[in-house]
Amino acid sequence: MTDVLLRGGLPWGLGAPADILVRGGRIDRVAQGIDAPGAQMIDIAGQFVLPGLVEAHCHLDKTLHGGPWIPHSADDTLAGRIANDLDRRAELGVPSVARIGALLGRMSEAGTTHVRTHTDIDPQVGLRGVEAVHEAAAGSPVEVRQVAFPQHGLLTNPGTAELLEEALKSGVEAVGGLDPAGVDRDPVRHLDVIFGLAERYGAHLDIHLHDGGSLGGWELELIIERTRALGLGGRVTISHAYALGQLDEAYQDRLVQGFAEAGVALVTAAVYSFPVPPVKKLRAAGVTVACGHDGIRDLWGPYGSGDMLERAMHVAYRSTFRRDEDIELALEAATYGGARALGLDGYGLAAGDRANLIVVPCGGAAEAVVVHPARSLVMKDGVVLHN
Amino acid sequence: MTDVLLRGGLPWGLGAPADILVRGGRIDRVAQGIDAPGAQMIDIAGQFVLPGLVEAHCHLDKTLHGGPWIPHSADDTLAGRIANDLDRRAELGVPSVARIGALLGRMSEAGTTHVRTHTDIDPQVGLRGVEAVHEAAAGSPVEVRQVAFPQHGLLTNPGTAELLEEALKSGVEAVGGLDPAGVDRDPVRHLDVIFGLAERYGAHLDIHLHDGGSLGGWELELIIERTRALGLGGRVTISHAYALGQLDEAYQDRLVQGFAEAGVALVTAAVYSFPVPPVKKLRAAGVTVACGHDGIRDLWGPYGSGDMLERAMHVAYRSTFRRDEDIELALEAATYGGARALGLDGYGLAAGDRANLIVVPCGGAAEAVVVHPARSLVMKDGVVLHN
Repeated sequence: MTDVLLRGGLPWGLGAPADILVRGGRIDRVAQGIDAPGAQMIDIAGQFVLPGLVEAHCHLDKTLHGGPWIPHSADDTLAGRIANDLDRRAELGVPSVARIGALLGRMSEAGTTHVRTHTDIDPQVGLRGVEAVHEAAAGSPVEVRQVAFPQHGLLTNPGTAELLEEALKSGVEAVGGLDPAGVDRDPVRHLDVIFGLAERYGAHLDIHLHDGGSLGGWELELIIERTRALGLGGRVTISHAYALGQLDEAYQDRLVQGFAEAGVALVTAAVYSFPVPPVKKLRAAGVTVACGHDGIRDLWGPYGSGDMLERAMHVAYRSTFRRDEDIELALEAATYGGARALGLDGYGLAAGDRANLIVVPCGGAAEAVVVHPARSLVMKDGVVLHN
Repeated sequence: MTDVLLRGGLPWGLGAPADILVRGGRIDRVAQGIDAPGAQMIDIAGQFVLPGLVEAHCHLDKTLHGGPWIPHSADDTLAGRIANDLDRRAELGVPSVARIGALLGRMSEAGTTHVRTHTDIDPQVGLRGVEAVHEAAAGSPVEVRQVAFPQHGLLTNPGTAELLEEALKSGVEAVGGLDPAGVDRDPVRHLDVIFGLAERYGAHLDIHLHDGGSLGGWELELIIERTRALGLGGRVTISHAYALGQLDEAYQDRLVQGFAEAGVALVTAAVYSFPVPPVKKLRAAGVTVACGHDGIRDLWGPYGSGDMLERAMHVAYRSTFRRDEDIELALEAATYGGARALGLDGYGLAAGDRANLIVVPCGGAAEAVVVHPARSLVMKDGVVLHN
């Protein structure tokens, strides 16, 4: 592998231009005026450099990306979207290795190096989604971690829990939960099942919580309590957490403190008009905040581009972040926050970190989020993928 | 002027491919298999054709577009943003003919053919903004209509009303209002002044209403009453109208009916997390709904690209529109709705309409909004500007 010298870029957080020497797939040195005879030199003067983007919540298995436009066919209820999904996925060839591969290709061009994806598991589809994602990921430079996800119910869909366990046995790294009260109708037992699986298999846990208001707030309490009791801090993520954006300040503060103490991470996608958790307050308390697209062009909705800088823009925009230091929090969610939630090693811009780097033709973090111009360079483990 | 034959496109609303013959700056015919010897033929097979985009609410005079990134420097209050604007505009050379021209250039590339812009008028800046916008617009193919806008207060900023009147005398086509209660502190007299100016000068009226809840609802009632009493239907627009998205259904319904009967149009920008008016309900009642960016990269906030298809995406997204026919309402706001609000003649895709056309490389309205790909052709009055 040839050494690469990225000349004159603006590494995020450094505050001054610097060269980055990449050797053996890792960052060897970050300094001004590096002399590296024999290295391939790439001039990135005046351009912003950041570590690879981390997509912390998507649904690769469901995507229709790369195919023709499919008009959305569900009614406006959650039940309608679930029924429509079950009805139409076979007709449309979901899951499709080709479409998942096309989306991973788009993600890679946009500088995403790591993905956590929630793969539907139920008695109808079995583990076919897991296998399709696994196959597509094997042909992609993007590192994909799957969550065994009971999209169509856990307790309400007999046979699903056993399949989740089978997925974990086969090497899937995380188990998912879904509205333990609103969808699955028995929050305590739902959480007991998925926390039990996470504990037994040393798996990560990622719970999709759309339940709002006081119901959602109470479920957040249950998750904090279990994470503490089982010592699973650092391995538990709550996605969406709409309730958190709806509760009064005092209750919100108590929950945020609970997340910080228990080691629970939050993921927001900032989709549609749904509430966005208080990113600034969460970060001030030391809670890990990550972000992702949720669905990308699928039977649940037609939106989503696969570009995590654009997604970070949505997070910043919906948070009414105007100042650079606030907008930067959204970029942090799409990079370091995602890396912490996923438990990635060697992530960052320091010497010794894996050389997963992207270059954006702009002057800094806030501009990268707001304008999200096409990436001018994407490097994965020292290999230039797009330039 | 050479005739132009656009071959094989998908004109919006037609449901089948058709050729469009453009002659003398107007649409001559829309039909299949047009034979037009001597016309310049442009193959747009399979691409979506729509009339020029209408930006119904922006602030050209304030823009920093085309210059370097300027970190946002105001605090998080409206008063802070107003003070910051007054403090820094001179330092940053606002208004700038060059930057307004750069933004109009970007808008034109993205297919915007008509703009309504709110130009700050106050005793400090006088009519310099009006003149700068006028000068930049004279060098652009985009047709620009100005609103004389009391951004820094009307009653609370003595001398402003006289300057608004001077602007109208000099040919500015519309007068603006701003939070008659929340900012200007005397809603009845504020509305009396601006409605009086609109009546005397035959001007359009566009009132920025951020005031929320029951206060905003009551101001909406005042505007409906005055529009009816003075017979100004078709000439009055309310921008933002956050209150409308916050009120209970019954009150919302009464106001929507009032807008329909009085002939009041609504403009939404769907910015940040602020409430979006109920677009579907408004359209079902026959109320004109238009959209625009509000600020584009200025001292009020760093967001905004100038692309009205992207802006329509925000309107659709924040309205939780997933189905094609719903998403299409956002495109209607960015085209026909804007044309009605601005009172444009000869707007559309029918024979006889002005040949202001854009071509988007996709199959239809919903996809154009969701994906908003770069325009493949922009035509203004029969002249191809970008191809």
